[in-house]
Amino acid sequence: MSDTEKHRISEVRVTPVAFRDLPLLNSVGVHEPFALRSVVEVVTDSGLCGLGESYGDLPHLRRLERAGQHLVGTDVFDLNGVWRGVNESLAADSGVGGHGMSGMVTDSSLADRVVSPFEVAALDLQGKAVGRPVSDLLGGAVRDRVAYSAYLFYKWAGHPGQEDDEWGAALDPDGLVRQARRIIDAYGFGAIKLKGGVLPPEEEIEAVRALRAAFPGLPLRLDPNGAWSVASSVKVGQELDGVVEYLEDPTPGIEGMARVAREVSMPLATNMCVVAFKHLPPAVRQDAVQVVLSDHHFWGGLRRSQRLGAICETFGMGLSMHSNSHLGISLAAMTHLASATPNLDYACDTHWPWKDPAEDVVVPGALTFEDGAVAVPTAPGLGVELDRDALARLHEQYLTSGIRERDDTAYMRRFRPEFDPTVPRW
Amino acid sequence: MSDTEKHRISEVRVTPVAFRDLPLLNSVGVHEPFALRSVVEVVTDSGLCGLGESYGDLPHLRRLERAGQHLVGTDVFDLNGVWRGVNESLAADSGVGGHGMSGMVTDSSLADRVVSPFEVAALDLQGKAVGRPVSDLLGGAVRDRVAYSAYLFYKWAGHPGQEDDEWGAALDPDGLVRQARRIIDAYGFGAIKLKGGVLPPEEEIEAVRALRAAFPGLPLRLDPNGAWSVASSVKVGQELDGVVEYLEDPTPGIEGMARVAREVSMPLATNMCVVAFKHLPPAVRQDAVQVVLSDHHFWGGLRRSQRLGAICETFGMGLSMHSNSHLGISLAAMTHLASATPNLDYACDTHWPWKDPAEDVVVPGALTFEDGAVAVPTAPGLGVELDRDALARLHEQYLTSGIRERDDTAYMRRFRPEFDPTVPRW
Ligand SMILES: [Mg+2]
Ligand SMILES: [Mg+2]
Repeated sequence: MSDTEKHRISEVRVTPVAFRDLPLLNSVGVHEPFALRSVVEVVTDSGLCGLGESYGDLPHLRRLERAGQHLVGTDVFDLNGVWRGVNESLAADSGVGGHGMSGMVTDSSLADRVVSPFEVAALDLQGKAVGRPVSDLLGGAVRDRVAYSAYLFYKWAGHPGQEDDEWGAALDPDGLVRQARRIIDAYGFGAIKLKGGVLPPEEEIEAVRALRAAFPGLPLRLDPNGAWSVASSVKVGQELDGVVEYLEDPTPGIEGMARVAREVSMPLATNMCVVAFKHLPPAVRQDAVQVVLSDHHFWGGLRRSQRLGAICETFGMGLSMHSNSHLGISLAAMTHLASATPNLDYACDTHWPWKDPAEDVVVPGALTFEDGAVAVPTAPGLGVELDRDALARLHEQYLTSGIRERDDTAYMRRFRPEFDPTVPRW
Repeated sequence: MSDTEKHRISEVRVTPVAFRDLPLLNSVGVHEPFALRSVVEVVTDSGLCGLGESYGDLPHLRRLERAGQHLVGTDVFDLNGVWRGVNESLAADSGVGGHGMSGMVTDSSLADRVVSPFEVAALDLQGKAVGRPVSDLLGGAVRDRVAYSAYLFYKWAGHPGQEDDEWGAALDPDGLVRQARRIIDAYGFGAIKLKGGVLPPEEEIEAVRALRAAFPGLPLRLDPNGAWSVASSVKVGQELDGVVEYLEDPTPGIEGMARVAREVSMPLATNMCVVAFKHLPPAVRQDAVQVVLSDHHFWGGLRRSQRLGAICETFGMGLSMHSNSHLGISLAAMTHLASATPNLDYACDTHWPWKDPAEDVVVPGALTFEDGAVAVPTAPGLGVELDRDALARLHEQYLTSGIRERDDTAYMRRFRPEFDPTVPRW
């Protein structure tokens, strides 16, 4: 019944991978043909292997490798020791680069970004060691299925120079409604998020209205990634009064968001101006945001994301979940976290549908969408298993992709040299 | 290696106990001859038994019993389920009485008070099930010894009508210095806290100065439990500038504390005006307190106390630990919590030395003071074992004590009928 053996980290492997991505548009450019991720394997002297997933930018990979070396010998139950080890490994770090978000979020915490995959892997290992799913280690699942949202993007028909992809173009309201139908038919999502900041606000308002008309029962959100001035944000907010459940990062910065919040009726959400614990006091003081989108990749892992959730609950802020392009290890981690966070009451964001199902590093079958939700895995740990052949294939793809740091802006400029990513733009 | 069996709660036993206490003085009266506690045993269908300890006031005992019945069938890893079950059991509760602090703290959260011993017992059970100390379930010990403070009290020589106790009287600076020497000689404490609010502030300032002179290297604290007006608090704070490491609850209420905080140099600490999560937003907004004294008995257990710690860290507040009269189960829980909370950087309070060592419900030996600190138990769970004979003895003592709800004020009035517990008093 009892297992008093220690599970000490004996080896850490960090493997960069690339998977095909589609030309999804956002305020800083367009997604490149490949998205990068890192797969972190943490091996213990007891013979267990735990998994984590993070950004694949080169400076970040180097940090993960250094941190991994520092963690050899640490017991996987010692999450404080994991935190300490990662911080020690970063002591001489310049902090430059490796944010993983193409310049869109650059003020997240270096330590929190780097510790995240190790903390997730440690929880995976704890779960495997004691025969419990990660949700149990986070306080127990309060729901057995986690709802995700349909994440719509303005997009080109295909990558320039390649054939059109199966999704085709979405550059106007009709295209987005078509995209929404397809994604909802396939996944059953019960909430819709539109990534905006691509076209002038009037056109994006029109798109939201078209989605409202086409899907009258579904909550809607719009996220221009800070592309609008305070004045434009207020105008959009007033026009979409009663139409969106929240408006996400209409304008950059806590001050700007606070000014918008005073003039619009709906909650303002963020994964751009409150991206680290240090941002919470000024945001609370100014009532700048009413919903924080957690993301365990830059909030320091699952337990620290629960801290964020506790702070949101205490200070009367809502809680939702942000996503980057990701693989199955992260989907499992996001699902466990959401399942054990009672006040995470919005459908979570995920880029999942934009990924080729054949391209993942986990053995298929553990994570499936039904009615827009993923069932919380009940196997020990994260409940996903590494597919080593797939890992090798996606690593090979990384090597040949030529991409070493995500740069949506540079890719956009190859086709639109005049493109300027500066925000606010409108 | 892996243990996938569930550990479901099959039975809960709540046993009230009484142990001898000394005539310690405070702002609302004087400790009665017996202190009450409840011992909570949580038994699982897998044959494990976990321990929790809480207040012994009769309304609280009734709530613990009702909550215990609601929890039968809950898996001990499902802390969210424990929280839900306790809240369901309280749905029809009037919320009257059972605060366990003789009227000194009446605005703590009913649910947090009641869930606490069950959460501690569930963590004890988790630890026993997986062969890990509770500190590991809280993120891992960052220190293997937890420092406590010498908790000095003004006191009578003995309970009226009884012989003088071994500590004798402490009603002036000399008496307190004598008490401090004795307690420090016995336990090796490296910090001193004086419970004030008993004599006029000038006399307590004099006592603090005498302690400063007698123990020049030891940090000092003074806690009058809200006995002073804002003006008196400011005056004391200014006089003790550079003498105390923090001033604890000089005046009642968040507004009053904020006014004092603006005028004094030292941090203000509290276990009276911020005693529930709902108090944190107003306290933060007004910068009313700079140190929160956590107490897992009214902050909802160990994980929720860690939430409090995370909020203190995020919002730049210090963290210390409050104590009531308690037994070994609570000392173990406090020690595990403090060990796994990196920012708990003050010596914790404990009433431990005021208890007869022969009167406890845990088997002796697991918890010992050395150089003012307790070594963090490394055995599975809390690392303490119930002594059933001792439990039976202290329960019998409860039955014959005649005390059913702590009331320091009524006891004081038996000897000083004119005593008025209203604060602020000076
Ligand atoms: Mg966003
Ligand atoms: Mg106090």
